Amino acid sequence: MNGAEELHGLFFEDLAVGQTAVIARTITDADIVLFAGISGDTNPVHINEEFAAGTMFSGRIAHGMLTASFISTVIGTRLPGPGCIYLSQSLRFKAPVRVGDTIWARATVTELFPEKRRAALSTTVTVRDKVVLEGEALVMVPLRATRAWPAAASSAAAD
Amino acid sequence: MNGAEELHGLFFEDLAVGQTAVIARTITDADIVLFAGISGDTNPVHINEEFAAGTMFSGRIAHGMLTASFISTVIGTRLPGPGCIYLSQSLRFKAPVRVGDTIWARATVTELFPEKRRAALSTTVTVRDKVVLEGEALVMVPLRATRAWPAAASSAAAD
Repeated sequence: MNGAEELHGLFFEDLAVGQTAVIARTITDADIVLFAGISGDTNPVHINEEFAAGTMFSGRIAHGMLTASFISTVIGTRLPGPGCIYLSQSLRFKAPVRVGDTIWARATVTELFPEKRRAALSTTVTVRDKVVLEGEALVMVPLRATRAWPAAASSAAAD
Repeated sequence: MNGAEELHGLFFEDLAVGQTAVIARTITDADIVLFAGISGDTNPVHINEEFAAGTMFSGRIAHGMLTASFISTVIGTRLPGPGCIYLSQSLRFKAPVRVGDTIWARATVTELFPEKRRAALSTTVTVRDKVVLEGEALVMVPLRATRAWPAAASSAAAD
């Protein structure tokens, strides 16, 4: 399977409470426009400066789900990374994100459930140290001891 | 403000428990590739068929947050639509979404909180009538009676 195993992220045995990972990105007009196109979320508060100027935000803001997507990025690429199964995520939107803001999305392991190979993570996105989005994630992480690469696992918890 | 008020969605007075709205989209390779680019979530389970073939999903799947973005689309464009403030969202990923799947994202008003002008909605995404994502949303919705367009509202709950 041409190096596919080398692309795998952390296994359950690699995880410990307190482990943390972050990604950071500057939000641009291109992100908002492309996200509007993909999602179809053309709410004018995101793409119409004249409409947005008349709202409580006094200008365009990024889609909350765009900001949330960076939490998925930390989990899917860093901690635990490729191979984990995303089970659930809660999202509390605390403040707007605007073009030019640099967002820092962080995930930290808060609890491990060995019997189910699950990990709970606290997830936050900050802009200039202010929390704009917070929540919790639950993921299932394969055991290194029982991985069977490249054969597919027999049961599909996400089915 | 050049017709901006005409772009506004439903006001709190327009809402009733049981109201429902849906959007539907067929997921394409372009959606997944562009979402990977915007989010930076390059987890190979989404973009590498050889890696994904060796996982429990036996092939590439869409990002969970891409599927979740369509919930935001229903809320931000249909029910309640432009003008509402997204406060929170829970997401439980139940089954994978693949290229070619047509997703139906639905939001239904489940409870109204007049004193805070908030509405709770159940949110589900289905593929061929199977639930792939479910959760709950909480939004704040302006009162028609007290709107002050185009002046910005005085207090910013999302600040």
